[in-house]
Amino acid sequence: MILALAGGVGGAKLANGLARVVDTGGLVIAVNTGDDFRHLGLHISPDLDTVMYNLAGQNNSEIGWGLAGETWNFMTALGWLGGPDWFKLGDKDLATHIERTRRMVAGETLSEVTAALCARFGVAHKVVPMSDEIVTTLVRTKDRWLPFQEYFVALRCEPEVSEFRFSGVDLAKSSPGLRAALESNVLRGIVICPSNPFVSIDPILAIADVRSLITAREVPVVAVSPIVGGRAIKGPTLKMMIELGIDPSAFGVARHYGSILDGFIIDHIDMSMSQDIETLGIQVIAADVVMKNVSDQERLAGVTLEFLDKIRERR
Amino acid sequence: MILALAGGVGGAKLANGLARVVDTGGLVIAVNTGDDFRHLGLHISPDLDTVMYNLAGQNNSEIGWGLAGETWNFMTALGWLGGPDWFKLGDKDLATHIERTRRMVAGETLSEVTAALCARFGVAHKVVPMSDEIVTTLVRTKDRWLPFQEYFVALRCEPEVSEFRFSGVDLAKSSPGLRAALESNVLRGIVICPSNPFVSIDPILAIADVRSLITAREVPVVAVSPIVGGRAIKGPTLKMMIELGIDPSAFGVARHYGSILDGFIIDHIDMSMSQDIETLGIQVIAADVVMKNVSDQERLAGVTLEFLDKIRERR
Repeated sequence: MILALAGGVGGAKLANGLARVVDTGGLVIAVNTGDDFRHLGLHISPDLDTVMYNLAGQNNSEIGWGLAGETWNFMTALGWLGGPDWFKLGDKDLATHIERTRRMVAGETLSEVTAALCARFGVAHKVVPMSDEIVTTLVRTKDRWLPFQEYFVALRCEPEVSEFRFSGVDLAKSSPGLRAALESNVLRGIVICPSNPFVSIDPILAIADVRSLITAREVPVVAVSPIVGGRAIKGPTLKMMIELGIDPSAFGVARHYGSILDGFIIDHIDMSMSQDIETLGIQVIAADVVMKNVSDQERLAGVTLEFLDKIRERR
Repeated sequence: MILALAGGVGGAKLANGLARVVDTGGLVIAVNTGDDFRHLGLHISPDLDTVMYNLAGQNNSEIGWGLAGETWNFMTALGWLGGPDWFKLGDKDLATHIERTRRMVAGETLSEVTAALCARFGVAHKVVPMSDEIVTTLVRTKDRWLPFQEYFVALRCEPEVSEFRFSGVDLAKSSPGLRAALESNVLRGIVICPSNPFVSIDPILAIADVRSLITAREVPVVAVSPIVGGRAIKGPTLKMMIELGIDPSAFGVARHYGSILDGFIIDHIDMSMSQDIETLGIQVIAADVVMKNVSDQERLAGVTLEFLDKIRERR
């Protein structure tokens, strides 16, 4: 069994690649919920939805998030009414949030709702939230601590960041599905998808039992770099690294993850950094890390699994 | 000033006629909220919306309720997810419910939200809920008491009814706008629109201070019959009358309203009943009561206002 840790769009791409090359039952994808928030009375889980829509083949590849074939009549009407329209919710996507909220109000956990929604979307592999407790990513800017979505969507990542905090994480446990994977006898390895390390992966690793179980296990942990040739493939990763004073490179990402990693996959273009990364005690291979289509996703997933196996065999 | 009491579609038509012939500031429309319910986490006020959409000229005249030019992508997606899709919410209409709920959660009263929404929809006349308290219409059937929307929409009025109850009405006061109209020095008359007497008008009249203020006032009260030629213009009014053992005719409606009425407007086709109705102490005139278009609405509104004035002058 493979456990993948994933956040938003980049993570969902590799997660989809893994889903397509691993047999059903052989993959658990644990997804960041630090971005979750209540908005318009709804429980919105952006990263869970991104992974679910991608694995269902229903993701909107034109705009990069949300559902394919989406319409925006609700949002337009809400804006016309003077309601808060900064967080765009498509008409079809809205059904996911309304149904999730309805089920949670009725007493289901986020894990249970996620399983039900994934079943409906025909997602065969297990997609689980990192936790059923509420963990809220906060972003420290010059003026104040911002809720993540306000920083990410409303302010388009413009304020300079100096720190992240995962409010509630000290009280949070891993979700039953993530915990079961971390304790599984057949766990073959852990893949950290090329998501934003600070706001997509760190919240998962900040859950106390997640980090301790990963550290205690003998299974290899491999990450795929979200930075290629000194640029983030997508999103604010590079901008955050610069603001946080972290070397804005694949090397900076490897050093940020540190001893939790056994292996790191960088792009061919970053091969010059492999020795520096290896001095951190992390094995390195190069691959084509940018995924432009599903066959890129499958190819990178295959490379990642081979690398995991090779690391395990070497031990 | 004219005060109109209205419920759903039929009531909204005459309310719209009144709105078009009365000067701005000269009309208050108090709307039934007994049909209001929480659904999918939203506060839904079907009758308030019907009146607002009609007065805004944005009502969907094809399907008879909701907004013009509506789309149903949310609802289709919710149904596909296995969510409750028996109460149809259009994509644009949904924005009204989400914005209403958002404002109420933030502490606004239903009256305040209604005023804000009406302002946005360009409705110049005052549209107010009957109460800011929760009043819930319940329908007694053979098996059990049903919430109104379950009876009306999910079960399409099929169960036989024997009684209605307006849960919470004993604790409810009239809304500030309705109360102000009922106490106004310039109140010229009260119009009971051709809505369902049992589930649209009775909830309003069941509010203790509404009935006592109407009874205490000298102003004439005129109703327009929702029954024409032994048939309900729309909806289950006639079916309910039969099940309740009430004479299924305009006369039956007049007798149901009883002493609260000074005048009753029936259709020409029902002229044979005028003497019977007059024996109840209610003045009667005949008019074309069926409103097929906006000019019918204006015409009937004009007839209603003239009748009110004539009754007042005769006193």
